[in-house]
Amino acid sequence: MILFFGELLADLITQEDFTSAEHFTLKVGGSPGNIARFASQLGVPTKIVSRVGNDPIGNRIVKKLEQAKVDISSVQIDNKYGTTLVFVQKTVESPDFFVIRGADRFLRLSEDEIDKILDGISIVHVSCWTLTHKDLYEMTMKVVRKAVERGISISFDPNCRDKLFECSKIERDRVFELLRYTTYLKPSLDDAMAILGTPSNESRESNEFTENVVKYYVEQFHKCGAKYVVLTAGRGGAFASVFDESKSVTHIPAVAERVVDATGAGDGFWAGMYYGLINKYDFIEACKIGAMVAGYIVQFVGADVDISALKGEIEKQIGKR
Amino acid sequence: MILFFGELLADLITQEDFTSAEHFTLKVGGSPGNIARFASQLGVPTKIVSRVGNDPIGNRIVKKLEQAKVDISSVQIDNKYGTTLVFVQKTVESPDFFVIRGADRFLRLSEDEIDKILDGISIVHVSCWTLTHKDLYEMTMKVVRKAVERGISISFDPNCRDKLFECSKIERDRVFELLRYTTYLKPSLDDAMAILGTPSNESRESNEFTENVVKYYVEQFHKCGAKYVVLTAGRGGAFASVFDESKSVTHIPAVAERVVDATGAGDGFWAGMYYGLINKYDFIEACKIGAMVAGYIVQFVGADVDISALKGEIEKQIGKR
Repeated sequence: MILFFGELLADLITQEDFTSAEHFTLKVGGSPGNIARFASQLGVPTKIVSRVGNDPIGNRIVKKLEQAKVDISSVQIDNKYGTTLVFVQKTVESPDFFVIRGADRFLRLSEDEIDKILDGISIVHVSCWTLTHKDLYEMTMKVVRKAVERGISISFDPNCRDKLFECSKIERDRVFELLRYTTYLKPSLDDAMAILGTPSNESRESNEFTENVVKYYVEQFHKCGAKYVVLTAGRGGAFASVFDESKSVTHIPAVAERVVDATGAGDGFWAGMYYGLINKYDFIEACKIGAMVAGYIVQFVGADVDISALKGEIEKQIGKR
Repeated sequence: MILFFGELLADLITQEDFTSAEHFTLKVGGSPGNIARFASQLGVPTKIVSRVGNDPIGNRIVKKLEQAKVDISSVQIDNKYGTTLVFVQKTVESPDFFVIRGADRFLRLSEDEIDKILDGISIVHVSCWTLTHKDLYEMTMKVVRKAVERGISISFDPNCRDKLFECSKIERDRVFELLRYTTYLKPSLDDAMAILGTPSNESRESNEFTENVVKYYVEQFHKCGAKYVVLTAGRGGAFASVFDESKSVTHIPAVAERVVDATGAGDGFWAGMYYGLINKYDFIEACKIGAMVAGYIVQFVGADVDISALKGEIEKQIGKR
């Protein structure tokens, strides 16, 4: 069973400018919740530990997870703080977001609870949102260290952005500390840039750039401790690498037939990858399944896609290879 | 100058059911902010003390107040908590709301700051939102007592609802404590019912009921300490009463020519009343001006109405009387 540890929230999306926006579309989500839901639809046993507000939005999030058969017995309900909200401005000129952080930031687990939730878990998936505040980070590391002691693998979604952190700057020390324990890491190019910066002597113009930069980022993440790294690059596909094997990076082409909306692609990639790992495919093969799921999701608007039907398709396609 | 002490927030309004609502309209507001803005547009000098999040919504609220020439020098910006949000479900079947309480709940003022903000103030307007949490209530009472010591009048908008309070129940002790110091009280029939309950031996059927109930509520509020009470009853107009004068209640008819949207009516009533009081009209006359402003605002959708033009009209109409 995979344990997801991170934020549950709702997005309020507008296509207007934040300074005057009036029309918002609400979508429930939170990356760990989306991945858990997708993975569960593919038949991967999943459980989520998070915290939502005692309000209709929190209820909706939990119900949606429950419907997808995610184990929600460890989702906490906060009577003091509301469900976390992310306001998203999807304008072409200046895409932007801001967070009204609520319940998920106040997740609390006693030593006993940590021991209990780790029972029967083979992978703990951690989101960057659990690193943003000191107390939350310390609890996360407690979970991570206990998990590693038990031989449980750690997955890390390094979706770090300055404004998620209490001090408005990515706390790189915390990110690097978690990387030391990380088995599976799936940064996007944007994540890699946010954490490691842009390598010097590189211009973004040539294709050369991308390949060198990918190699640079993958190597850096390996150096930090991550054993399996897959760097996703949108339409450019993904680049997978296993530490110590030969420093080779395998390109995994994007498989989308048509891209309608990229929302949920990264979460779908994770879910497909987990399907592969849980079913004992090797890492590169698991990443290919990830690319398949991502390619399926981008054909729909939003991340509220039921991918149950994809399960048979995956097995058919892998069978062919 | 009138000092407004209470919540600044944004409403997210939907006409769908909360359990599945996707489309929301964002309107910036918060009753004390709306009243300050309306009163300022009528030429009443106003100042607001509140707290918003350091986010685009908080910025918008503050900017709107500034544009209406409200003194915003005492509005605090919170770097930790986001701007308070109220989700409103405007469906015919089950109108409802819930609050994701943020920055306004964390308003903090030192003794020195309280002394300073009371300089030059003739009325302090307090909203029920400042009573919802123990620490906030205690600070509010400190402001109220200091104000009364200086001979400043207290206005109280008793817009109490169970779910605003930390313990999910109106803290009546706090409401009654504040009523002891209250000069001007403007409850709606709903507010009166929420605080005092429904009087026994009354049925809602007859007109008799309304009159008796109004008298009962007005008397109760006077007994609690409020000197001037005006109970608003929507299309039924308002009922104004001065303590000790003769126990008589003056009916003030609603003056709306056509009602498009009642949003902002109560806030407009307050603003008109303040225009009257600041310009030395007696209480009953001030309430009539309140009814005029309310009647003007209900002709428009929402509370984002510029009522500057109404100023000349008020003077013309009062001149006729």
